[in-house]
Amino acid sequence: MSESRHNVTIRPIGYARSCFKEKFGIPRQPGLVPHARARIKMLAPYNRPEAFRGIEDFSHLWISFLFHQHLGAAWRATVRPPRLGGNERVGVFATRSTYRPNPLGLSVVQLDRIEIAGDAVTLHVSGVDLLDGTPVVDIKPYVPYADALPDAHGGFAPTPPDRTLSITFTEAAEQQIAAREAAGLADLRALITELLRLDPRPAYRGHETQAADFGMRLYDFDLRWRIEGKEVTVTALVNSGTRGGSEK
Amino acid sequence: MSESRHNVTIRPIGYARSCFKEKFGIPRQPGLVPHARARIKMLAPYNRPEAFRGIEDFSHLWISFLFHQHLGAAWRATVRPPRLGGNERVGVFATRSTYRPNPLGLSVVQLDRIEIAGDAVTLHVSGVDLLDGTPVVDIKPYVPYADALPDAHGGFAPTPPDRTLSITFTEAAEQQIAAREAAGLADLRALITELLRLDPRPAYRGHETQAADFGMRLYDFDLRWRIEGKEVTVTALVNSGTRGGSEK
Repeated sequence: MSESRHNVTIRPIGYARSCFKEKFGIPRQPGLVPHARARIKMLAPYNRPEAFRGIEDFSHLWISFLFHQHLGAAWRATVRPPRLGGNERVGVFATRSTYRPNPLGLSVVQLDRIEIAGDAVTLHVSGVDLLDGTPVVDIKPYVPYADALPDAHGGFAPTPPDRTLSITFTEAAEQQIAAREAAGLADLRALITELLRLDPRPAYRGHETQAADFGMRLYDFDLRWRIEGKEVTVTALVNSGTRGGSEK
Repeated sequence: MSESRHNVTIRPIGYARSCFKEKFGIPRQPGLVPHARARIKMLAPYNRPEAFRGIEDFSHLWISFLFHQHLGAAWRATVRPPRLGGNERVGVFATRSTYRPNPLGLSVVQLDRIEIAGDAVTLHVSGVDLLDGTPVVDIKPYVPYADALPDAHGGFAPTPPDRTLSITFTEAAEQQIAAREAAGLADLRALITELLRLDPRPAYRGHETQAADFGMRLYDFDLRWRIEGKEVTVTALVNSGTRGGSEK
């Protein structure tokens, strides 16, 4: 590919610290897990408080970011979206897949508050689908009169994902969650409930009926659960160390 | 600024050809001028028809693009949005101003149709606020269940701009429009009406009451109009050559 005069170098302006430590289990769109929180810490020289003047009047923000775990990866003309069961191929531009020509991600998040302390500027946001460590390259306000198009219709994902799973917790898991909530992880039980209702299993396994155990990394622990039919049981929060995403 | 391992080179995947030939007069958000049309012509190797498979099932698309007339320009921590009369300063991240650290623009547009002819792939879109020649760097589907947030609220631009101007046409202008519509520029009168209702004057001049003449480039002509109070009169379409945006 020839170099173009319109090739540009994009630089991170900040980094997101989020509860999601690996790709497995991250919601597939923003807003699906309202209690999924992140902090966006701005880098110098973009940490000037005046650059954010007025932003707290907006309820939501667009975060443009880099798919940093895909940097240098080849793009693909077609992908298999999980929403289609992981079997059917559609064009990459008809999806928000990471296998794009330019590794740009886009998420709308709720702005909870902005924290300014000395030369540190941190945006506290929620409803995220951002991997921990994501480089943020732009922040723009969500402008409802221009961006909210409730009459738009959308291809293979016209409605939010099914949330018919029922979530229960073992006594051990309840105690571990209560301990972490008491130590400062607010709304952890709500977060886990919202996450597992989305069924993080690989799409091709979502129709299995036999019981199976899964795990994913969340904050500094592994979340473990068992799924059987439509019943999810959260079994434990264990110290992190193993990779999640596989059967446990 | 130190080089980061997350600096990435972004490459155009296509270019937008639009009715807007200069910045003056372009709507300040997408969707405000439904008849503003553009074609996005894909570059090789992104012109593979299969990369767009399924896209026609979506009514709207997010277009990520470069502010190509701002490449190399310095960012500004604060800007004066037209919506605030051009006097009050807010943080650049509380706006969609072009004076950003990374020159990334974002617009939601309506997808009218996709045209595939040999190795040419062209997306026909409308409701654009894209300057002619804009480099497009990503195309993503608008996913209503995730992106349409009608309850979001938005800072200094909570509602669409005022459209209380009344638009009339001189007989000469009517004839020139009819001739161009007959030659293939469909809905030109509707486009002009939608555009001028938004009052393209600089914000600081929007409260003037004395009559003044303005012009802007549109397609291959200069659109000329007179404004006096709330009354706009379209006076002529003349062959392009002069720059618009100034008094005529």
